Amino acid sequence: MLARYLPVLAWGRRYSRDQFGRDAVAALVVTIMLIPQSLAYALLAGLPPEVGLYASILPLLAYAIFGSSTSLAVGPVAVISLMTAAAVGRLAAEGTADYASAAIVLALLSGGMLTLLGLFRLGFIANFLSHPVISGFITASGIIIATSQIGALLGIASHGHAMPDLLASLWPGLSGLNPYTIAVGFGSLAILVWVRLDMKRRLTGWGMGAGLATVLVRAAPALVVLGAIAASALFDLGDKGVALVGAVPQGIPLLAIPDLSLDLVGALIGPAFIISIVGFVESVSVAQTLAAKKRERIDPDRELIGLGAANIAAGLGSGYPVTGGFARSVVNHDAGAATPAAGILTALGIAIATLLLTPFLALLPKATLAATIVVAVLALVDFSILKKAFAYSRADFIAVATTLAVTLVFGVEMGISLGVAASILVFLYRTSRPHMAVVGRVPGSEHFRNVRRHSVETDPSILSLRVDESLYFANARYLEDVVLTAVGANPELRHVILMCPAVNAIDMSALESLEAINDRLRDMGLAFHLTEVKGPVMDKLKRSDFLANLTGEVFLSQHEAITRLSRKSPNA
Amino acid sequence: MLARYLPVLAWGRRYSRDQFGRDAVAALVVTIMLIPQSLAYALLAGLPPEVGLYASILPLLAYAIFGSSTSLAVGPVAVISLMTAAAVGRLAAEGTADYASAAIVLALLSGGMLTLLGLFRLGFIANFLSHPVISGFITASGIIIATSQIGALLGIASHGHAMPDLLASLWPGLSGLNPYTIAVGFGSLAILVWVRLDMKRRLTGWGMGAGLATVLVRAAPALVVLGAIAASALFDLGDKGVALVGAVPQGIPLLAIPDLSLDLVGALIGPAFIISIVGFVESVSVAQTLAAKKRERIDPDRELIGLGAANIAAGLGSGYPVTGGFARSVVNHDAGAATPAAGILTALGIAIATLLLTPFLALLPKATLAATIVVAVLALVDFSILKKAFAYSRADFIAVATTLAVTLVFGVEMGISLGVAASILVFLYRTSRPHMAVVGRVPGSEHFRNVRRHSVETDPSILSLRVDESLYFANARYLEDVVLTAVGANPELRHVILMCPAVNAIDMSALESLEAINDRLRDMGLAFHLTEVKGPVMDKLKRSDFLANLTGEVFLSQHEAITRLSRKSPNA
Repeated sequence: MLARYLPVLAWGRRYSRDQFGRDAVAALVVTIMLIPQSLAYALLAGLPPEVGLYASILPLLAYAIFGSSTSLAVGPVAVISLMTAAAVGRLAAEGTADYASAAIVLALLSGGMLTLLGLFRLGFIANFLSHPVISGFITASGIIIATSQIGALLGIASHGHAMPDLLASLWPGLSGLNPYTIAVGFGSLAILVWVRLDMKRRLTGWGMGAGLATVLVRAAPALVVLGAIAASALFDLGDKGVALVGAVPQGIPLLAIPDLSLDLVGALIGPAFIISIVGFVESVSVAQTLAAKKRERIDPDRELIGLGAANIAAGLGSGYPVTGGFARSVVNHDAGAATPAAGILTALGIAIATLLLTPFLALLPKATLAATIVVAVLALVDFSILKKAFAYSRADFIAVATTLAVTLVFGVEMGISLGVAASILVFLYRTSRPHMAVVGRVPGSEHFRNVRRHSVETDPSILSLRVDESLYFANARYLEDVVLTAVGANPELRHVILMCPAVNAIDMSALESLEAINDRLRDMGLAFHLTEVKGPVMDKLKRSDFLANLTGEVFLSQHEAITRLSRKSPNA
Repeated sequence: MLARYLPVLAWGRRYSRDQFGRDAVAALVVTIMLIPQSLAYALLAGLPPEVGLYASILPLLAYAIFGSSTSLAVGPVAVISLMTAAAVGRLAAEGTADYASAAIVLALLSGGMLTLLGLFRLGFIANFLSHPVISGFITASGIIIATSQIGALLGIASHGHAMPDLLASLWPGLSGLNPYTIAVGFGSLAILVWVRLDMKRRLTGWGMGAGLATVLVRAAPALVVLGAIAASALFDLGDKGVALVGAVPQGIPLLAIPDLSLDLVGALIGPAFIISIVGFVESVSVAQTLAAKKRERIDPDRELIGLGAANIAAGLGSGYPVTGGFARSVVNHDAGAATPAAGILTALGIAIATLLLTPFLALLPKATLAATIVVAVLALVDFSILKKAFAYSRADFIAVATTLAVTLVFGVEMGISLGVAASILVFLYRTSRPHMAVVGRVPGSEHFRNVRRHSVETDPSILSLRVDESLYFANARYLEDVVLTAVGANPELRHVILMCPAVNAIDMSALESLEAINDRLRDMGLAFHLTEVKGPVMDKLKRSDFLANLTGEVFLSQHEAITRLSRKSPNA
């Protein structure tokens, strides 16, 4: 029972020295990768950079205890950082104590919601965030994040969490560019792009082993940060107008008591919900992909509890919302992480780094961190989903395009909300006008097919209509229209058959429509029959008085109906 | 082309003296019925009673020109009046000029929206208001309206548009009851209840012809109003503390210019939309029921334009939102209305009555109008829908119960909104966990059935799963879970078949899940096959690269798949 909620009890009991060795190597690699990212994403969230480090310590411990994935590396990620900035930025000014404490409350709320969703097994809610919506959202977020870093790369101020604000805020600053900042920013950017695109090939070209080359590539962003700190000290960049991180408090705040005012909770509960769902969907899909490679399974409800615990820990440790990061989880997996203990060791690594690094962080140019962010998020931007969705279906394209456009123009919360609404509406619209076909018998068989697509036999006294959708309130009236229009003014007609092999449910509204159809056909002197009604649907119909009033019969198969009704009919 | 939007051109050209005779009789009956209702519903909407008369003149003319139903009688109705009071009551105090002009703007907005929905053929939006939601909403509204009239019947003040407010507002007044008001109120109520329940039977029992008795029953509420005016004059009821309608301006305001401030429009656009949809759904269902009796058809999109024109006319004529009323449309139909000209004649009747009546209206006790309302709305209250829904399906019951409870407690707008949300969510939830079954062959046949329900043959090297739902984002992940769980650890398994006869669509999210299933089964050394995929679904799959990567095949029939795969399989 306890083991259900504490996976650590299962793997902890069997923990071996071999596993420890693999976990330690993975932790070292992830730690080196996570340090610059944590600093940068905290800035992106509008928080002091050290908050990113805080958010990479306790949450990792909590996830290691409550989470179920052996590969997932949690911590600050780009999209959630942007969403945090958008949510908290409405309530407080960046740099204030209120801003930082709102971010903490956001993490606690998000953690509480994720935990509750997990305990009540409500993980299916995340399914309503469809792949197209997520893809459009991530791409738009990547563009917004990259744009938001242009200011820092050029040494000018910028603000806003959607494209119009951001671009408008950049414009007036263009007259006051700082050449030193540009040199640092674009220098860092050039090195990081080279690292990503070319470094490994070049190193192996020089005869270096692929393993060592990979390690160097992963350590490169941390080395760039160290180099930038050195350059900042050497050339006194701060005095030349380059924005530096500045003084950072020493030590690690553990278990701070947050300020939970009711107003603040009320203002953040909506954003916290959206952040929770987006974070969970991203995280669980990474976890499932990596689990599949190890032939493991992930229980989404347990993952909710693991992420919930991580976010509560982020709140208690003066951090901000966290989730499983894609790139770092892949690195963790590739580096051989065997158990969640890799996360514990990573947390330890970050804690040590935090204590050692803080004296030097003051000198780090913010432009270098901006370059780190830009390189990381450009990998998120993928317009191919638009093309793919366009080719596959108009409904999916509408969902992607809505999410992408609204996120870019109106920001993350509006984008994801309207994206979800659009995908649900498109689905409802589609099911509200189901495909219906008049069918006839394929000669010499018991098969019935669309009269428009196939050469089939029909009996002029019988109209057979097949409906290819569950019948429910949104298509109930449409069903009435189609049936009554199809009946039209046909004097030979005696029987109308509704063929239901693809009707998986009939709700009360649809039942009333069927009753209305039955009544109107009775008024016209026609009998109304159903065929191939599924078992569960038939069980429900038996609970109503529809069958008692039905002028015709319910046949098990369409073939049986045609055989019996043709014989009875005077026209046969 | 013009005739499409102006049905009057069609019926007007063929208008006969016989039709005029029938229309005139129907108009007379409806006019007599409409006068007390118009006065009473205007009071219910928080407006001066004469506004109800204004809303029964121009809108009827407009509907007669643009509407398509030959039976529908439009004008003020109870539920829309309550919704108007709820919407306008938030913006202005009852009795002020701002209140009246907000009601006018509401009618104009509602008219504009209905017209646009009709022009763009968006009538299907109304389908999302399911039968259970409408039923729960109407019942709750009837209870609220009846409760809101208790104050007027007792001679005490009351206010509010939902049960908690109403009941709380009645409480303090109970100490100041006015006996004369109670006598008038409950006297009127007793007579009206007797009229409704017993009068016709009694009259025919006394030997009166059924036709004349029906006419008298329908005229009775108007006679009660006349009697109350007479009693008020005779006994000086106004001086005895009975609230009277009071001085009413003479004449009929035609084509007033409304005050369309942007703030007001912004505040009323949401309520106007809800009022439009509720009014349309009520109206179109009455129109369709009556059209069916005449073997006519109603085009919902044209009805939208007709109702839109009626509401714009209501706004221009200093009225408030109107729609087709159930009781008066039935009366109009029963009295023999042949064309929409009956509406024109009714408007004429109301206009004459307005000019003649206004001098006397001042003396009418409000308690008599309250009694008229109570008798009219109690017919709306019908709890049997709760029982029916409970017996039929849990999903429908949740929709009714949510709508009923939320409307009673939080008011009409919240009630209808949450009702619609609940019915959509319940539908999405159901489709998010589709019925899936492992199937086997019924011995000696080509039929495949659920292994749990039937005694069937299976091949240990083949797992056949049937999914009974369209595959889309909300059930995509569930599908992955079920398939991979069903595969489990079965060393004999070679083939997995997904049987898709009830899959009416596969969206992009589901396609990605199918790709994921294909990939994971490939990793396990299993082939993934589809059978009985519908034509339109197959067309879409061909537009993706799913089929190219599929490890197995797509078979037209499950039988063919099993025959071929069993032969190929080493275990066969």
